[in-house]
Amino acid sequence: MGDRLRVLGIDPGLASTGFGVVEAAPGGHDARSIAMGAIRTKAKQPRAQRLATIAQRVDELIVEHEPTEVAIEQQYVADNVRSAMAIGEARAAVMVAAAGRGLPVHEYTPSAVKEAVTGYGGAPKEQVQQMVMAQLELTEEPSPLDVSDALAIALTRLAESRLDALLSGDAQPTGSGQGGAA
Amino acid sequence: MGDRLRVLGIDPGLASTGFGVVEAAPGGHDARSIAMGAIRTKAKQPRAQRLATIAQRVDELIVEHEPTEVAIEQQYVADNVRSAMAIGEARAAVMVAAAGRGLPVHEYTPSAVKEAVTGYGGAPKEQVQQMVMAQLELTEEPSPLDVSDALAIALTRLAESRLDALLSGDAQPTGSGQGGAA
Repeated sequence: MGDRLRVLGIDPGLASTGFGVVEAAPGGHDARSIAMGAIRTKAKQPRAQRLATIAQRVDELIVEHEPTEVAIEQQYVADNVRSAMAIGEARAAVMVAAAGRGLPVHEYTPSAVKEAVTGYGGAPKEQVQQMVMAQLELTEEPSPLDVSDALAIALTRLAESRLDALLSGDAQPTGSGQGGAA
Repeated sequence: MGDRLRVLGIDPGLASTGFGVVEAAPGGHDARSIAMGAIRTKAKQPRAQRLATIAQRVDELIVEHEPTEVAIEQQYVADNVRSAMAIGEARAAVMVAAAGRGLPVHEYTPSAVKEAVTGYGGAPKEQVQQMVMAQLELTEEPSPLDVSDALAIALTRLAESRLDALLSGDAQPTGSGQGGAA
C-alpha cells in the first residue's frame, strides 16, 4: 500500500504568506486540495512579531492538517538587498516551524514550479493559476495569487515524487490500481 | 527602583551566530557579561534544519539566562541577493525565537553599534572589540569576532537605555551610589 503524500506548499512573504495543502496517492497521482489560504501580518507590528506570527500559524497548520512534507519557494531574485532580506526572513520563519516539527522541507525556484505545473519554466502567472485549477479540479480561482502559487509549489513536490517513483521503478501509471508500491 | 536590564545580544549568521548576555543596573550602568559564545551549524545540513537549530538554541539561551530584551544586528549590506537572504534567514530564526518568548527585539545597524560603543560610526572592528573588553572588564578577547559583535550589540541597547533614562529624567549619574535599585 504505502502512505498517501500530503504536502503543505508555502509561498512566503512578510505581509502575506500563501499556503495550500495538497494530498495525493503514493507516487503522487490523484492530487486533491485539502486546505488553502493566506497568513497575513500587519505592517504596524514589530517585524519580530510578524515573523513569529508566520511561524506560529505554520505550526498550527502542520498540527491541523498533518502534512508529511513541506514545499517552499526558493526565490533568488529581489528588487534589492532590503527586499531580499525580507523574503529570506519570511521563508526562514516557515522553515523554522517545519523543521521544528521534524518535517522535510523541499525548496523550488519559481521557474521549476512553472516548469512542473505548466511544462514551461517561463509560463505567465495566469497560466500557472489555470493549471493549478485544472489539476486540483477547483471551480473557483484561488485568491490572492500567493494562494495559487502555494498550491503550485505543493503540486511541484508531487510532480517530483512521481518522477522519483518512476526512476526507482515503483511507478504506477495513472489508473493502474493500487499495486504493491510501498 | 526598577529592574536590572539583561540583554541578549545577537550577531546572526547561518554558519555562526554570535551571542552575548550582558546585564546592567537600571539606567544601563555597570554593565557586566553573563555569558557569551557562538551557535554553529553545519553546511552539510539542510538549511531548514540549520535555521531550526539557531531558533532552538536561542530559545534555550532565553530560558537559561532569562534576558529581559533581545538586541540584534540589522544589516542592510550584503555581497549579493543570495547572501542577503541567508543573513535575513538567520536573523529571522533569532527573531522567531525571541518573539515566541514574548521578548522585545531591538535592531541596530552596524554603524549605530560602532557609534554607541566607540563614539565613531566608522570605527574598525578591532577598536570595537577593545571597547567591548574595556566596558565589560574582560581579560581575554572574545573570539570569534561575532561573539565580540554580539556583546557590542547588547552594549548598544544598554547605551540606548541610558539615553532613554536621561531623556525621561530617571538618570542616575555613574558612580552616584546604588540608590534604591533592585
